[in-house]
Amino acid sequence: MRMVDLIEKKRDGHALTKEEIRYAIEGYTNGDIPDYQMSAFAMAIFFQDMSTEERAELTMAMVESGDQMNLSDVEGIKVDKHSTGGVGDKTTIALAPLVAALGVPVAKMSGRGLGHTGGTIDKLEAIPGFSVEINTSEFTRLVNKNKLAVVGQTGNLTPADKKLYALRDVTATVNSIPLIASSIMSKKIASGADAIVLDVKTGSGAFMKELDQSKELAEAMVAIGKSLGRDTMAVISDMNQPLGRTIGNALEVKEAIEMLRGEGPEDLLELCLTLGSHMVYLAKQAASVEEAKAKLKEVIANGKALEALKTFIEAQNGDASIVDDPSKLPTAKYLIEVKAAKAGMVSSIVADKIGTAAMLLGAGRATKESEIDLAVGIVLNKKIGEKVEAGESLATLHANSEDVQNVIDMVLGAYTISSGEVIKPTLIYEEIH
Amino acid sequence: MRMVDLIEKKRDGHALTKEEIRYAIEGYTNGDIPDYQMSAFAMAIFFQDMSTEERAELTMAMVESGDQMNLSDVEGIKVDKHSTGGVGDKTTIALAPLVAALGVPVAKMSGRGLGHTGGTIDKLEAIPGFSVEINTSEFTRLVNKNKLAVVGQTGNLTPADKKLYALRDVTATVNSIPLIASSIMSKKIASGADAIVLDVKTGSGAFMKELDQSKELAEAMVAIGKSLGRDTMAVISDMNQPLGRTIGNALEVKEAIEMLRGEGPEDLLELCLTLGSHMVYLAKQAASVEEAKAKLKEVIANGKALEALKTFIEAQNGDASIVDDPSKLPTAKYLIEVKAAKAGMVSSIVADKIGTAAMLLGAGRATKESEIDLAVGIVLNKKIGEKVEAGESLATLHANSEDVQNVIDMVLGAYTISSGEVIKPTLIYEEIH
Repeated sequence: MRMVDLIEKKRDGHALTKEEIRYAIEGYTNGDIPDYQMSAFAMAIFFQDMSTEERAELTMAMVESGDQMNLSDVEGIKVDKHSTGGVGDKTTIALAPLVAALGVPVAKMSGRGLGHTGGTIDKLEAIPGFSVEINTSEFTRLVNKNKLAVVGQTGNLTPADKKLYALRDVTATVNSIPLIASSIMSKKIASGADAIVLDVKTGSGAFMKELDQSKELAEAMVAIGKSLGRDTMAVISDMNQPLGRTIGNALEVKEAIEMLRGEGPEDLLELCLTLGSHMVYLAKQAASVEEAKAKLKEVIANGKALEALKTFIEAQNGDASIVDDPSKLPTAKYLIEVKAAKAGMVSSIVADKIGTAAMLLGAGRATKESEIDLAVGIVLNKKIGEKVEAGESLATLHANSEDVQNVIDMVLGAYTISSGEVIKPTLIYEEIH
Repeated sequence: MRMVDLIEKKRDGHALTKEEIRYAIEGYTNGDIPDYQMSAFAMAIFFQDMSTEERAELTMAMVESGDQMNLSDVEGIKVDKHSTGGVGDKTTIALAPLVAALGVPVAKMSGRGLGHTGGTIDKLEAIPGFSVEINTSEFTRLVNKNKLAVVGQTGNLTPADKKLYALRDVTATVNSIPLIASSIMSKKIASGADAIVLDVKTGSGAFMKELDQSKELAEAMVAIGKSLGRDTMAVISDMNQPLGRTIGNALEVKEAIEMLRGEGPEDLLELCLTLGSHMVYLAKQAASVEEAKAKLKEVIANGKALEALKTFIEAQNGDASIVDDPSKLPTAKYLIEVKAAKAGMVSSIVADKIGTAAMLLGAGRATKESEIDLAVGIVLNKKIGEKVEAGESLATLHANSEDVQNVIDMVLGAYTISSGEVIKPTLIYEEIH
């Protein structure tokens, strides 16, 4: 077999066999196939696409390029959740204890990463003492005991995907549905998921700006999951404005706690109930999605969800008293109001700009070497469809510097205030099964 | 400027500016842009094509990536001819003295190369003593004096094209009209051509198998030439069977001499008269193509073309007596007949198979290191549309070994003999101006 022939075959629109896909991915991982052939191959895939069978084979070839999490000692059906990412997305922190409270085992491997705020692990580290440095047997023990544990990324998972992603990033081949879908699904499967619930964001603040694209990606991932024997479904949710009202690490932990107490913002609650009910159902802890949703509301109301969060934090050496007293989380020195120049109704909030503003305050990493300030961030006092008076606060900056005029300007620039009526955006567009 | 943005721009179907194309080609030549970006770029071009302006800019960027032949001291309009290559194509050896006899300056840089037989230089070296090792001032002097000289490739011409071609070869991006056209045209322009006549082959033995493709390539090259101020035209000629009756280095020199004497095969003569008349016309040595053709026939009839060949051979230290006595050319030890199994009419001769058979006899190089046997080759006694009796010779192998059963089988396999009538194929399909 020669890589040049496989590139040509894909270039000419033919489907590759399992053996051919294995040859390409194994060869690329071990260095036998050079970057310049893989980038031409990726570009050919960009133009010619891949069938569902090819996408599934590509996913498995990447899974098998490295280590796989062994969760065989974890009892029950492990349901993983994945979000394609957006601004203010603290869903995991609220959702994990919520479904764990219903007996769904959540064995979560999570990351740090670049962006507007830190990753889930960074956010959790805003809790004093909290640690994700636990070994596999302790991880398994905690999941069996508490139904929830979070560990940092360990082992050499999907090295083919890491290498390919870095190459795609510099060869304009990121934006390809088969490549994005297999990249995400390979990581979920290598992490040991039995079933997968996907949260595919759509809108100006999402990777996929158009609903059609988001739907296509969701369908691609669901098809891959099912082809590989993993119960998989996807929810397409709105990212035309940030999720919830907070952007920033400690601020988002606080908002997640409020949600579990039944006092969180409506959109975060709705998203958690939707994703959570599917997780509970796929984990066979409810006979229907409707029943699952009712049970989730119940554990919020009776405090069991909040209890699950405390147990989880304690088990990983965190200070669980922050749950009852969030003021113990890191706080910023200065609270600075961003005030509306005119009265009206908020008609749009460009999520990306709010994210960048939070990063400028220090909430996220611009490069791998950047240090995160866990305390800083932005609280949105007004969201789309809400009324505002001239001079009223649109948002509050939590800053550790007073020199934030550029951030104020950026947040102001993210808001549009209209004189007419504005309808609140839909949060959940569609479910893909 | 970043290469990844240029790849994306081309991927999305936009035209690149002159500055962008320069950036890509200069960066690739000097190593700033890595192979993996260039191969993705080439694949994007494969799918999205390039406008005439982009193709011309790409051509000039490759021309200016290295040295250019300085032919400013050569008097007259230098018209270069280029063939896209085929089996038995000895056109240059016959055509160069033919047009030189009419005062067209032929300053030919030529190569060796891999394939069924050697390149033009290998073929000329079948003439005892002939040398292409002449420096630029001697080359210029000879062209001015005799209107004809051939030199081996010197200097660092179009290094961008060399590097890009090697990359395309292993990334399935060879077969792209804008890349093929700019590659060929960059070499012609760097070699100092004022005007260019292209012989684009079409058919089973050609790089372009289909007439449509061949026409597209011809049009692309003519458009590039004209955009860059070079009078350019193309002839689309048949390569469904080998050209003329000989394949092999010394054998092809002999056939070229026969043609100049007016005794050559009809197809070779017709092709030389067609290409030659355009060269003479573009060099302004005739008022029309028809007049040019009449003049070419005249110099064949009155022996001036043959005389020009002798002068050319002598000037480059060759033994010109081979022109009158071709038996002085290297000859093979064994003549072996390949006989028809049945009677009928030859309906096809797969040119590639005849070429490979010649290479197996030793006429061509399989790798750069292979040694060529100048004496060996194949003479086709029957061509398409000719009658053959059972047991009559289809072809004569000129071999230096008697162990050639595989070659006999291959030649037999190349021939199809039909019982019905067969019409001789068209030689010249079209002219592109």
